[in-house]
Amino acid sequence: LLTLLFLDYLGTFAFAVSGALKAVRRRMDLFGMIVLAVVTAIGGGTIRDVMVGQRPFWLTDANYILLALLAVAAVFLLYRLISSGETALLWFDAVGLGAFTVIGASRAMDHGVGLVGTVALACLSGVGGGMIRDVLAGDVPVVLRKEVYASASILGAILFWLLKRWGVMPEVSVPVATGVVTAVRLVSLHYGFGLPRLEARKGNHE
Amino acid sequence: LLTLLFLDYLGTFAFAVSGALKAVRRRMDLFGMIVLAVVTAIGGGTIRDVMVGQRPFWLTDANYILLALLAVAAVFLLYRLISSGETALLWFDAVGLGAFTVIGASRAMDHGVGLVGTVALACLSGVGGGMIRDVLAGDVPVVLRKEVYASASILGAILFWLLKRWGVMPEVSVPVATGVVTAVRLVSLHYGFGLPRLEARKGNHE
Amino acid sequence: LLTLLFLDYLGTFAFAVSGALKAVRRRMDLFGMIVLAVVTAIGGGTIRDVMVGQRPFWLTDANYILLALLAVAAVFLLYRLISSGETALLWFDAVGLGAFTVIGASRAMDHGVGLVGTVALACLSGVGGGMIRDVLAGDVPVVLRKEVYASASILGAILFWLLKRWGVMPEVSVPVATGVVTAVRLVSLHYGFGLPRLEARKGNHE
Repeated sequence: LLTLLFLDYLGTFAFAVSGALKAVRRRMDLFGMIVLAVVTAIGGGTIRDVMVGQRPFWLTDANYILLALLAVAAVFLLYRLISSGETALLWFDAVGLGAFTVIGASRAMDHGVGLVGTVALACLSGVGGGMIRDVLAGDVPVVLRKEVYASASILGAILFWLLKRWGVMPEVSVPVATGVVTAVRLVSLHYGFGLPRLEARKGNHE
Repeated sequence: LLTLLFLDYLGTFAFAVSGALKAVRRRMDLFGMIVLAVVTAIGGGTIRDVMVGQRPFWLTDANYILLALLAVAAVFLLYRLISSGETALLWFDAVGLGAFTVIGASRAMDHGVGLVGTVALACLSGVGGGMIRDVLAGDVPVVLRKEVYASASILGAILFWLLKRWGVMPEVSVPVATGVVTAVRLVSLHYGFGLPRLEARKGNHE
Repeated sequence: LLTLLFLDYLGTFAFAVSGALKAVRRRMDLFGMIVLAVVTAIGGGTIRDVMVGQRPFWLTDANYILLALLAVAAVFLLYRLISSGETALLWFDAVGLGAFTVIGASRAMDHGVGLVGTVALACLSGVGGGMIRDVLAGDVPVVLRKEVYASASILGAILFWLLKRWGVMPEVSVPVATGVVTAVRLVSLHYGFGLPRLEARKGNHE
């Protein structure tokens, strides 16, 4: 599927950029940037492939890792120019979240997994790389903080599952579901949407 | 095995509750609670299944993830009522540790693994979910701190291995080994048992 | 291959020692030492085996875990004697990095993986255990900090790939590639080599 492959490469590049930028912020050097960019870009898909019993995609197609290295080179060379690039990064990241969610859902359904398992695997594919990135950098993963991130992924996975069940062709369902995840993530970022949160009682902290 | 399945569901629920409570303490929102509860509940068993080359259990039986979502709903709705629920949580968690340890040991022996590998895999199954929960929340895992936790799991795995070797029926060995892990964990909690610890020399900290 | 197996055991022991020492520094008790030593020693190879679809090595050969326990016993008993053991540890760690890198590269090539995938898998094998050790102990992994560590592994993986392509026998290529990784790591430690690093702009920290 040409569209899916294009989105996959775009998501890989975007997540690699986010990993490289995180490394710069944590004052890591060039190889820290490379390691963090690569694990961010391939982390989610690797978890997905291991779960369904496939060899990780980057062992058979070297383009993914080369693309991540390209992203590091771009960040290294263009860092001073992208001072207003935060917005661009969030757009890229949102597209990557959408693409990886849909690819994960598609792969799970190919292996005969039901709705709940498909949603869980799609969500893990979408957010896994960013989780590893944040944990390695010593942060609490963004997906656990007060933002619509995993929820956009879950919504898109359910939508893709329904569309495929209804017999909608992948040429339509893939871009639609990817677009919905991306749009929900971006709209919620713009308006600062969040979900309800419990107040921890005093003295209840570990 | 009905007993084992029941213990498995109970352990899943307990670990999901512990993940959801940890999310509340870290001031995460509802989706943070869901993500942390689900990964805590399915983390250990996922590692176990991947190690022995099986598809993760939650891809074939959706009940585990639904149970984790139920646990999140319970915590969200009943949070104000369980002010004295810490003790109940520790009981649940200890039962989960026991159940997941025994299931891990049983699965390893089914695949022809020896004593040392069985103990390691059982321990990883029992403590893996909690490890992931603590790392994602930004804490050093409870299993590494000064408590009898991994040691209870190791003891129970050795016991289960011996019982199975001696030809004891699973109807007996499963509840006995689970009970021993749970009891050792709870008794050590009650009396504050710990293991010896070396004093790091001054100036030796990284 | 006798040489490779010997290096593998040596690397396992060295990484286990590094995990046990880290546990002491973080004021963990004996079982914290055991858990951290074992995951450090088997982490990288476990990732490697899961990626290529093999059962983890420690499920079939119990010696690796026993060796890690031996390392913990050695640290526990000899801790006061190794006040000048930091240097020895760095030597051991560098040898382990070399051995695990070369074993990872060799395993990847046995499974028909290309250059880029081989280098990525070799690097992950070499640095994976230490990454898990540092994350569990609450630190940012050493491999991401300002040191020649992953780069030594990457260099050695490329060298091993070339040597094997050129038809050099493993009796030669294995010790040579291992030696190069170890030497590059130790020389860079001695002279304090590092790689260029970008200055994060003010106000750009998350």
